[in-house]
Amino acid sequence: QFEPRPLAKAPPSPGLLQAAAYVYDAQYNRNIPFETSPKAVRLYYLYNHWSMQAATYFFIFVDLALALFEEPAVYLLPFLGKYATSLVEVLCLLVFFGRLVHFAQVTPRSVFWKDTKNICIMISILVTLIDLIVYGALRISAIRGIRWSRPLRPIFLINFAESRQIRRAFRSIRNTLPEITYVFLLFMFSVLMFSLMALKLFGDRNLKTVEGSPYFTNYLEIVFNMYVLVTTANSPDVMMPAYDFSWWYCLFFIVYVIINTYIFMSVFLAVVYNNYRKHLKNEIRKLAYMKRRKMIEAFNLLKVKEGAEFVVKEDQWKHLVKLVAPDISTSHRELLLRISDEEQKGCVDKKSFVRLADLLNIQVITIKLHSHPLDIWFPHVYNSTPSLCIRSMVRHKGFVWMYDVIILINAVFIALDEKNPYISYAEWVFLCLYIVEILLKLYTYEPRNFFARNQFWNWFDTSIIIAALIATVLNTALRSVTIYNSQQVLDIVFILRVLRLIRIIDSIQRFRVIMNTLINIMPTMLTFGGLVLVVYYIFSIVGMEIFQGKVKFFAGNTTTPHALYCGNPALKDSTFARAKYCKNNFNNIASSFIVLMELTVVNQCGFALVTHQAAKLYFITFHIVIVIMIIKTVDALLQRMFEAEIPPEEEGPSLDEILNLSPNDAYPKNPVFDNAA
Amino acid sequence: QFEPRPLAKAPPSPGLLQAAAYVYDAQYNRNIPFETSPKAVRLYYLYNHWSMQAATYFFIFVDLALALFEEPAVYLLPFLGKYATSLVEVLCLLVFFGRLVHFAQVTPRSVFWKDTKNICIMISILVTLIDLIVYGALRISAIRGIRWSRPLRPIFLINFAESRQIRRAFRSIRNTLPEITYVFLLFMFSVLMFSLMALKLFGDRNLKTVEGSPYFTNYLEIVFNMYVLVTTANSPDVMMPAYDFSWWYCLFFIVYVIINTYIFMSVFLAVVYNNYRKHLKNEIRKLAYMKRRKMIEAFNLLKVKEGAEFVVKEDQWKHLVKLVAPDISTSHRELLLRISDEEQKGCVDKKSFVRLADLLNIQVITIKLHSHPLDIWFPHVYNSTPSLCIRSMVRHKGFVWMYDVIILINAVFIALDEKNPYISYAEWVFLCLYIVEILLKLYTYEPRNFFARNQFWNWFDTSIIIAALIATVLNTALRSVTIYNSQQVLDIVFILRVLRLIRIIDSIQRFRVIMNTLINIMPTMLTFGGLVLVVYYIFSIVGMEIFQGKVKFFAGNTTTPHALYCGNPALKDSTFARAKYCKNNFNNIASSFIVLMELTVVNQCGFALVTHQAAKLYFITFHIVIVIMIIKTVDALLQRMFEAEIPPEEEGPSLDEILNLSPNDAYPKNPVFDNAA
Repeated sequence: QFEPRPLAKAPPSPGLLQAAAYVYDAQYNRNIPFETSPKAVRLYYLYNHWSMQAATYFFIFVDLALALFEEPAVYLLPFLGKYATSLVEVLCLLVFFGRLVHFAQVTPRSVFWKDTKNICIMISILVTLIDLIVYGALRISAIRGIRWSRPLRPIFLINFAESRQIRRAFRSIRNTLPEITYVFLLFMFSVLMFSLMALKLFGDRNLKTVEGSPYFTNYLEIVFNMYVLVTTANSPDVMMPAYDFSWWYCLFFIVYVIINTYIFMSVFLAVVYNNYRKHLKNEIRKLAYMKRRKMIEAFNLLKVKEGAEFVVKEDQWKHLVKLVAPDISTSHRELLLRISDEEQKGCVDKKSFVRLADLLNIQVITIKLHSHPLDIWFPHVYNSTPSLCIRSMVRHKGFVWMYDVIILINAVFIALDEKNPYISYAEWVFLCLYIVEILLKLYTYEPRNFFARNQFWNWFDTSIIIAALIATVLNTALRSVTIYNSQQVLDIVFILRVLRLIRIIDSIQRFRVIMNTLINIMPTMLTFGGLVLVVYYIFSIVGMEIFQGKVKFFAGNTTTPHALYCGNPALKDSTFARAKYCKNNFNNIASSFIVLMELTVVNQCGFALVTHQAAKLYFITFHIVIVIMIIKTVDALLQRMFEAEIPPEEEGPSLDEILNLSPNDAYPKNPVFDNAA
Repeated sequence: QFEPRPLAKAPPSPGLLQAAAYVYDAQYNRNIPFETSPKAVRLYYLYNHWSMQAATYFFIFVDLALALFEEPAVYLLPFLGKYATSLVEVLCLLVFFGRLVHFAQVTPRSVFWKDTKNICIMISILVTLIDLIVYGALRISAIRGIRWSRPLRPIFLINFAESRQIRRAFRSIRNTLPEITYVFLLFMFSVLMFSLMALKLFGDRNLKTVEGSPYFTNYLEIVFNMYVLVTTANSPDVMMPAYDFSWWYCLFFIVYVIINTYIFMSVFLAVVYNNYRKHLKNEIRKLAYMKRRKMIEAFNLLKVKEGAEFVVKEDQWKHLVKLVAPDISTSHRELLLRISDEEQKGCVDKKSFVRLADLLNIQVITIKLHSHPLDIWFPHVYNSTPSLCIRSMVRHKGFVWMYDVIILINAVFIALDEKNPYISYAEWVFLCLYIVEILLKLYTYEPRNFFARNQFWNWFDTSIIIAALIATVLNTALRSVTIYNSQQVLDIVFILRVLRLIRIIDSIQRFRVIMNTLINIMPTMLTFGGLVLVVYYIFSIVGMEIFQGKVKFFAGNTTTPHALYCGNPALKDSTFARAKYCKNNFNNIASSFIVLMELTVVNQCGFALVTHQAAKLYFITFHIVIVIMIIKTVDALLQRMFEAEIPPEEEGPSLDEILNLSPNDAYPKNPVFDNAA
């Protein structure tokens, strides 16, 4: 698998190092492994250039966003109407195809055609084209067709190599799935069992639900209700009629919830963990082995014989590092060389060379002691007594505390009614105070250090304050010019004002630690976000095709009687309409996303019950998929937590373990550009 | 800490072994460490006798169950009425006091008085007595008092030493609490922040909730709603007015749920895990060290000098093992001796002796090859051709499959309407088939092996079938004798019939594996159950005192208008009354338990909103406590899963680590009976 990472800013992985060794080798024409001609190298650089990657992402985004403008549209395009989206889609497909062809140019042919990813993209492009043509033809003959290829769009997101994390997550889901399936079957068996009991216990009692329909008489109905009860969405409603009838029947539901919600939840967790333990250790070993193998291959390419052993010459080593990690400073590179060539022999031996990938992964923070620009420009003024006094004041702890107090006072003012003109003026005072704080800090601390890459809070503060300043000024300007008080701008001002208060977290050490934990688990959460996006997109498109127009929303000031039952007579007097849920519909992609979001949070059975019976299937499927995602995320979190646990000695797997690896794993398909990370 | 485990059936822990060594020592009068006179040993045995323990548990149960009969009673006692429960409670307190005095007799005085557990029990007894006297006095003067000491009752459950697991869980919660508190504070900060934003964004919009009250105008109200939204209980209701007003406001709620539900959930998980990693490894090391220390102490008591080294003589070793684990067979003991005394020198050296506790923990399954009783009594008949034929038939795989098919057919029959007489007869047929199966199996397999301790499914099958037989016969008898068709018996018959179907799980290998996982995590779940019971009990009693009578339930056929609003005018037209939730009240302990159960499943805000404002505090407190319990359980599950991971070499901590242990840990307070497990 060709992993197109930009050479220019890559976290240097062993695969990349190996590739770089080949490129280096090719540049010096020592030997050419396959098509790695200078032209191929240029193409490879171009393929990995950030602008090409950004363009790909942009077109993937455009392709996905098309759903906003296609019928049923959130925003109807004013010009060209129906054909504009189709044209844009064709453009996107062309870009994807171009990218694929480019990829084929820099990959050995045999590898390219063996990769399911590429086949997948090609088929998707073809299928989408066919769908577009059929749809266009039907449109011209004035027949309403269905754009059935739209759920395929996330395939581009998954399969274009940039989203490796998401693909990895999908692979890991595929690994866990069989084991989860068995637990799920057992769970379903338990639900069916309990439903049968419920039918026997309550079916002949002539009980009625709150809505007046017969209670627990239809087996399938019961199964659905019991399934929803597991998600706790219809608790306690589903229990109340039986509970009202007799006290003891409550026990039935309590036992049910304990077994099917809590105990099965634990079993799922246990199964996922067992799976993790089984797979991960091997995977880590495999990775370590692959890493080593690649580094050795790179070494073999560059080695020269010196005395009894093979080594890599110092300037070749430097050239390689410069190629792989052009960002690092000269001093950093010298440091690495000093470590790799401890005896200063002017060459790096095999053992040290193999460590290079790990060495490059160690973060070296280069502290540059800049002088403050003011110190250079106006040294007398900057070092005068009042200036020194200001600077020591800003560095004092009391300065931070003072601003914490100011933030708290600001919080009180925000909570108060801002219609009072004095409070409105106070806002300006606070804004000025914050700006003064930033200016003072910039005066005291060196600006380049103040805005260093790891100074998250400084960046956060400054951008919030500047945004607030712009928004407040804009709001005042709009208010003075027109009578119209722009609501959007005002909303933004409000939000920015409240966001300013977050700063107080940074003052408390313990909170900072928690924020770090949060930042640590962020990548996992983001991968989960990507997965969810894919699932949501597919289900939204399908949901729109099925349920579009079934439930209608009428704005608050409408007078039509339809508004009382969301434009669907079947919803008359339903709890759905009474709770004013009409806006929870599938009438466009944005509404669909929101409904799916609600279903993720609480499997809101109300909606499932009001539309037709087949809808239940849709909702249950969606729920199962989401549960699998969540289990997956827990799995990934566990993995992240325990990866640190694997002792470093594991890096070198024993011979036995290497022999146990499948041939597929031991011999990378693409010896040049493979990147197992 | 004196850990009163019955010597007779103890899982032999090192502490017990050490204690046994002392007891053994005392019996042979070699030296007497403190009060370990023969009388003390008798008292010690008596204290640990199973009947004494059962009695203690029984009285704890009676004490807790008193809430069922005290005002507001679920069942009002017919005789003596008000005074009966007080008398029983005094009796319980006497028993607890007696148990404590007995415990004091077998524990060194200094240890007894240092143990907070004992002080706790004493204070609880005293406080309860004072409360009883005050209450009685008020009662006689016809003033209604509050039995405020009742929430203390679970203290007896926690502190009587038998429930060591629950106490351990409480201790571990205490350890995790500080770290969780900081995350919780950050979480609350986030909720307050978002509430402030919500107030600013929606407060002036003149929006209305579904019930017609103003939407998001009161800050405290918003905070409460946003808190409930985290539990997802009021989603999407809380969002709908803003969503109806404008599409974009939906984003506010989505961001809120993502941050406060999903991300904070992950942070909680991460913090709990970090905590686990920090504490557990040390704890395991500490335990291993304590274990070793105790075994060495036991060795030092029993050792005699033989040649250059100290050893324990073979018969003393045997006596000790017999004392500690009287259940194990002679052959098992001989096996252990063979392992401990590899060179057959007639004595056990220090190294082998220290291993004894681990050796005893290894489960040895003794397979006894009994002959079938019929083979002994009627060998000719039992070994005749037809008999052999039947036996090979029963052993055949097809026999299991046949019964799987029968179970499936039975499931279909159960689902069908049983009013049809033929189906009713079919029930008898199935019952007979199951009985025949059990008889055939008993005929084929040796009964003692068939009902061996690890044959869970055989036990399950047989008991279900016998129970079903009894219940069905009873039901038929009742039906023929009286016209009255006992509903309770019929319900039991139904449930037993369905339970029979569970057997099919056993036929599928994968399901059996999952069931084993389930059984593995059971102890953790049960400890959680114990904790929840304690929390529920305390909250029920408090809830009853506060909310008793606020909401009334009227049976279905009542005609009073009060039934429409649960007897509380404040509930007129509320969603609470409309959903017929009247039975969710705090009018007696059973109802309270059920309400708390519902709150655990879904933090049902509806209830909280209808009673007075202070109730919100009660519900939020309850929710926080339950969340802590659940986090704790996840913690415990993780622990259980990873305990197996700790490599056995860790058993012997290094000197440094031992030196780093606090003096309290290194030197057990009670050198005789301490049990750190």
